[in-house]
Order: sequence, then C-alpha cells, then structure tokens
Amino acid sequence: MKFARYEINGTVQYGTVDGDMVTRITGEPWGGYEVSSDTESISSVKILAPTLPSKMIAIGLNYKSHLGDKTAPSVPEPFIKTPSCVVGPNDCIVLPTDSTIVQEEAELAIIFGKTCRNATKENALDYVFGYTCANDVSERDWQKNDLQWTRAKSSDTFGPIGPFIVTGLDPSNLAISARLNGETVQSSNTSDLLFDVPSIIEWVSKFITMEPGDLILTGTPGTTATLNDGDTIEIEVEGIGVLSNCVKTQ
Amino acid sequence: MKFARYEINGTVQYGTVDGDMVTRITGEPWGGYEVSSDTESISSVKILAPTLPSKMIAIGLNYKSHLGDKTAPSVPEPFIKTPSCVVGPNDCIVLPTDSTIVQEEAELAIIFGKTCRNATKENALDYVFGYTCANDVSERDWQKNDLQWTRAKSSDTFGPIGPFIVTGLDPSNLAISARLNGETVQSSNTSDLLFDVPSIIEWVSKFITMEPGDLILTGTPGTTATLNDGDTIEIEVEGIGVLSNCVKTQ
Repeated sequence: MKFARYEINGTVQYGTVDGDMVTRITGEPWGGYEVSSDTESISSVKILAPTLPSKMIAIGLNYKSHLGDKTAPSVPEPFIKTPSCVVGPNDCIVLPTDSTIVQEEAELAIIFGKTCRNATKENALDYVFGYTCANDVSERDWQKNDLQWTRAKSSDTFGPIGPFIVTGLDPSNLAISARLNGETVQSSNTSDLLFDVPSIIEWVSKFITMEPGDLILTGTPGTTATLNDGDTIEIEVEGIGVLSNCVKTQ
Repeated sequence: MKFARYEINGTVQYGTVDGDMVTRITGEPWGGYEVSSDTESISSVKILAPTLPSKMIAIGLNYKSHLGDKTAPSVPEPFIKTPSCVVGPNDCIVLPTDSTIVQEEAELAIIFGKTCRNATKENALDYVFGYTCANDVSERDWQKNDLQWTRAKSSDTFGPIGPFIVTGLDPSNLAISARLNGETVQSSNTSDLLFDVPSIIEWVSKFITMEPGDLILTGTPGTTATLNDGDTIEIEVEGIGVLSNCVKTQ
C-alpha cells in the first residue's frame, strides 16, 4: 500500500494513494485508521513530508561504493539528523550563508510502525511500517572539519523525505538513484548495502528506542553531487516514487 | 520563577514551585498559562523531566578545564542528543550491556521559550525561557571509537534533566557541581565557559531553528567520574536545584 501526508484547505491529513488519487484516512497509517470517502486528485493537494519523526537516525559509510579510501566499518555507524531539518517534496533545500560544498545523498529510509527496542535480525522487519525516499543533504567542509556532523547534516532543510510511504517492499533489492537537473548522478541498488535493513535495525535498537513514525536513513551509494542555487535534485527509489526538491541560497 | 513538570493521579502537568509546594498551571510555562488553585506538596507528586524537547543540542569542549590535551575550538562545537534519551529526576541511568566506561557530565541547560533562528549575541537571551540541570551521560569507548557520538551520547536514559526550570538567572556566573555517592567529583562555575550562553545560541541558531521547550546543554567542566551499578549521581547548578539519578545495569 501507498500512503501520503498532505494538506488540503489548510488541513493536514494522511491518505491512501491509488494512481493519481488520494483518499483521506483517520489518524496515522501505523495506527488503527478508517478510510473515508474523501478522495482528491494528488495534483490538487500539497504533498508533505510523509512523517514528522521524533527522531531521525542515518547510517554512514554503508555502501562499499561510497567508502572512497575509508575502511569498511565492522558495525553500522549511526549518526543523528535532528527532525527539524525535515522538509517535504518540492520544498527547497536552502544553502546556508557560510556553506561552501552542499551535496545530495540518495537514500532508502525506513519508517517504523511500532516501538522498537532490542530487535533481532530475525524480527527486525516486523517493526517496519514502510519505506520512503530521503536526501541526506550534507555540507562537506563542515562534515570534514567540525567536531561532529551537526550543522553538516542537520542544518534547516537538510532532510528532504517523501513523496510516499510504501509498505510491503523487499528492502534488499531496490534500485536507487539521484538526478541533478535531469542528469543521473547516483545509480545503485540496495542489494549493495554493507549492513542490510535488519542488521541496521538490530544495531540501532540495542541502544536507542525507535518509535512509530521514526526514521532510519540507510546510507548512500557511490559519489554524490554538489547542489547550487537554482538546481532541482530528484531522489528515486524503486517502488516508492521520486522525491524532487529545488535548491536556493539563503 | 521556578516551574516543575510532574505527575499526580496519572495526569502530567506543569506547575509553579514555591518552597515545598507546587501549584498547577494550564498549559506550558512558555505559553500563555493560568495558575490554578490546585496546590500539592512536592513530596506527594512525581517530578518529571521539565521538558520533552523536540531537539536537544549539546556543546563539546566548552570549558578550558575539560579540554585535556585538545586545542580550544575556535567556534562552538554542537552535537545532537536525540530526545528519546531524556529521563527525569530520580529515574535510573541504565548502563548498556556492552558499555565499558559510562561517565557523568554536569551541565547547565538552556530551555528555549520562543522559536529562535539567527539570533545575535545581543538578543540571544530574549529567546531563553529558563535553565535547568543536565547530565550529559557519555560512554567513553564509544565516543572515542565510533564514527559519530550517537550511542556514546544518546543511548536510552543518557539524558537526565531537571529537577526544575528556573527563570531570571544570570547564566554567566552559576556554580556547577557533580556529586557521586555524596563525594564531589566536579566543581566549577559557568563563568569558565569558553563560549557563553549568548555565543552558543547565536552559533546554533545560524543553522538550526530552536523551538519552545528545546534544549541546549552548554558543556561540562573538568574531569568526569565513571558510573557503576548502584551509584547515585547528583548534578547541582546554583539557583536551580539538585538533579539526582540512580545508576543500574541493563
């Protein structure tokens, strides 16, 4: 199934997506909900970030093709993006005033459906509600030179997610790509993840309790492209859709 | 003024504190609120973490006495603690199964009262609602060896805060200390901060929007003590009170 979070007439709600149409549900997709009879064309509503997570974890160095000259980690390497950086489809990524090299990172994002603590690889997928596309926007000079990756990864607007939440996907074999102004700049498959989705969930939930609606971004493949004022960056994950964002200066 | 967040008869609410008594208010201290006539003795209620922040930033290396052999940073060095690690007064800090050296860090915490973006040193304090005590619990092996300080600083229960929010303090001259099982293990004053409260707020809000109820932990002085099963750790900041937490194994 496919879900969207959207705004219509000033009201924010979730709905189920079928083709070009969205039908309002009561409550959140991971709660008990009822399907209403309020159906709209997607083009007539504003699609929002599909979740407002209470936390957003991301995994560093999780594709061999992204390692460069770094050694592959022996365990997943989580970092935190503060949820205030989340923006939705078609929102602009704002380049901070003092930034020099802001890059995109195409990622598959896990959305939790249940409170998750001490999951095992065997039961990890039971906690997953669905998946969405994410762009782990990163300022490379700050990432390299600051003590921690705080402004490098969590500056306002550095967390585009969307457009939809899709359930029932096999996360171990999904094509993932990024296009900058229409040109492909990343192209890979989640089968190349160093730590797969169950391994990531097992590791993170040993230390940090994940809640319904929370996110884990699973890492980015290959090399990434620099964003400049006026660009359009699209992240696509097979079966989910295309997350498109404009880029502008502050 | 002094505020507490507390639970009584299964209901969570805020109140104003006067001596040993707490009086319920409607809503949050940083919103418009009304004072009720419901007054209880503090000993008859459960005092909770004074805020459930949407984000929690902390500043690394912010006392000269804590630098060790490291160079003083030229700008504040923020990192993120995910809010799921917050616990309240008298809750236990749980030592994770695989941890080896978990330490306390006594800190003054800023609580925001207004949405804050691009503050200046001159107007930064206008965004502050008040202050509380914080314990930036840290696993030193993970802090040293992981790519980022995620589990080192954000494992569940690693963010004790409280007991009260106090308004009207001068954050530039407050005694701060930690006592482990009654023995003083840290003792300093916020006058020794490398970056003072206005400078921290100016820096963080250049990149990340702070919301009412959000926290910034301002750094810890000197050397810190290792926590073991059965310990009691107390953090005290002048004018706020004592944040006391038990320590236990998982």
